[in-house]
Amino acid sequence: MGNRWEFDTMNSRRISKAIRIGDVTIGGGAPVVVQSMTKTDTRDVRATIEQIKELEDGDCELVRVAVPDAQAARAIVDIKKGIKIPLVADIHFDYRLALTALEAGADGLRLNPGNIGEPDKVQKVTLAARERGVPIRIGLNAGSLPKTDNPDLNVAERMVDAALEQVRLLESLDFDLIKVSLKFFDVPTTIEAYQSIAEKIPYPLHIGITEAGLPRTGIIRSTVGIGTLLWLGIGDTIRVSLTAHPREEVVAAYEILKSLNLRQHGPVLVSCPTCGRAEVDVVKLAEEVEKRLQKIDKPIKVAVMGCVVNGPGEAKDADVGIACGKGKGVIFKKGKKVATVEEKDFFTALMKEVEGL
Amino acid sequence: MGNRWEFDTMNSRRISKAIRIGDVTIGGGAPVVVQSMTKTDTRDVRATIEQIKELEDGDCELVRVAVPDAQAARAIVDIKKGIKIPLVADIHFDYRLALTALEAGADGLRLNPGNIGEPDKVQKVTLAARERGVPIRIGLNAGSLPKTDNPDLNVAERMVDAALEQVRLLESLDFDLIKVSLKFFDVPTTIEAYQSIAEKIPYPLHIGITEAGLPRTGIIRSTVGIGTLLWLGIGDTIRVSLTAHPREEVVAAYEILKSLNLRQHGPVLVSCPTCGRAEVDVVKLAEEVEKRLQKIDKPIKVAVMGCVVNGPGEAKDADVGIACGKGKGVIFKKGKKVATVEEKDFFTALMKEVEGL
Repeated sequence: MGNRWEFDTMNSRRISKAIRIGDVTIGGGAPVVVQSMTKTDTRDVRATIEQIKELEDGDCELVRVAVPDAQAARAIVDIKKGIKIPLVADIHFDYRLALTALEAGADGLRLNPGNIGEPDKVQKVTLAARERGVPIRIGLNAGSLPKTDNPDLNVAERMVDAALEQVRLLESLDFDLIKVSLKFFDVPTTIEAYQSIAEKIPYPLHIGITEAGLPRTGIIRSTVGIGTLLWLGIGDTIRVSLTAHPREEVVAAYEILKSLNLRQHGPVLVSCPTCGRAEVDVVKLAEEVEKRLQKIDKPIKVAVMGCVVNGPGEAKDADVGIACGKGKGVIFKKGKKVATVEEKDFFTALMKEVEGL
Repeated sequence: MGNRWEFDTMNSRRISKAIRIGDVTIGGGAPVVVQSMTKTDTRDVRATIEQIKELEDGDCELVRVAVPDAQAARAIVDIKKGIKIPLVADIHFDYRLALTALEAGADGLRLNPGNIGEPDKVQKVTLAARERGVPIRIGLNAGSLPKTDNPDLNVAERMVDAALEQVRLLESLDFDLIKVSLKFFDVPTTIEAYQSIAEKIPYPLHIGITEAGLPRTGIIRSTVGIGTLLWLGIGDTIRVSLTAHPREEVVAAYEILKSLNLRQHGPVLVSCPTCGRAEVDVVKLAEEVEKRLQKIDKPIKVAVMGCVVNGPGEAKDADVGIACGKGKGVIFKKGKKVATVEEKDFFTALMKEVEGL
């Protein structure tokens, strides 16, 4: 097995070398960082700040902006004045945009080795980043891979090879503020690529599935890929790419992390799927509770259960829970029965206990 | 590592002993079966048939109905007359309901060892099921676990122990039409439990996360658990439990399976998340395309890409794709450029190629 790790449970996390982007630590055992990317025209400073503020409200911890031209790179100066979280400049094709973005105060850079050009261009960017202590993400995408001489490599191997080549280049310049991503639409290939690179370099990994699509299907595709990698112990920062408003990306990212107990972020609602056994409208009650819980910041667990099969068990396990039966509901708080209420009072009685926590 | 398997890639699937529920094969290398559960009152035959027909329209392959009383058990006779897919009766508390469900023609049984009672009751059900060749799912839920004498066991171990005890009981009665599930709200615990049981028994596994909640968060929680297990090679049939209409469960189940290339089910839409680089409204175009694709059954891959970074690469990789730029879009079909179109014609030109496949 050589230096291959054993991944038996999700507890064996890969500990990478920590880097700092602005005041956010990525890797080295730090909590997995939630990031997103703006979808506004970066040159439109006001719109971009507004979207980043929406992301900050959702607890996004790091934001990336596209830098398609020099005006967008220079806009970073003003964007940074209006936001709190660190900003990463996303660079393709033209290395000079990276230099301008650094001058404009970008806290991090993302370079795509597939289209940035010759090593001397990457070298110029690296030296400028080193001078400022700004990390660089080597961001591969299967859709824009560098050409290869070896036709036998699969996509995962090509991504890994291309990333390693860049890593060696940056290391040769005495630069180690490195983060790597290897994104693809195909989930098993993406997992294979990240597993491979995780063994070969000590740097933090930014994980995600690219071009995952609209929320309805894209959330599932992203979640299978990111969730499996995190369970394997791989991943220091995540981005859920969705063809949607970026706040949806942040919501989904936290839900993935919460489901693996890697982060806490507001309440968790446990609710049964309902079946022919339920004697109350569980969907309606759960929806009302979820809506109200969105206004609560505390990392509490609330259970809404429709019948006596798993109801009392799950309700007892939650901070506050209700196990509903015919016309009556039993309310549990920290595992103890605290009240039996009529159906019309289910919501009010449950929320009273939640708010009293 | 003893008999512990190596799970390096998702290709090493666990091959279980195949069982048949009605005309559906579960395990033994068969495609992973998508199932759901009705949320109607099972005694209401018309409503239950109607909901199962909706599930059949979504390609649900197996359906379970709650059997809270004898009237519900007897209703199975009439429900089966109106549906095509096999039906599993969900039994808790009272073993006699299982006997009635068998007489009524149930194609499978689900028993909860946590509340079904003494071994002699399970024995009666098992002998009746053996006579008819009807499989039994031993369906554990952490919310309704049998009592244990060993306080040192964690929830995963308790679920596994309880399941193994039932498996041995059924085997002692010369019965091997067995399927097992070990469901819990906590994802890492659920994965741990399934990994453990997967090594200990040869039977197919029904996998899922229980009480996952409303779709917004529940889909993510279910997907992390089910997706990781499937990637590990574990799972012969899946149910996504959501506090929502069951057709949503089936849609999500297929998306999980598609993302791991385990099943094909209609078109796949690849679309970029859009960023400050996009010069067209990718979200709007992708939404229009997704809506139209829902009416298409073919397992094709369609790409909607907003810019030149990954656009041409991904569009070429799809069966049909569009890479949009400023006011123009290039349409690719099977990797070849087939047209360059104006922005107003993006949707029409793309769908023309899709429909011509």
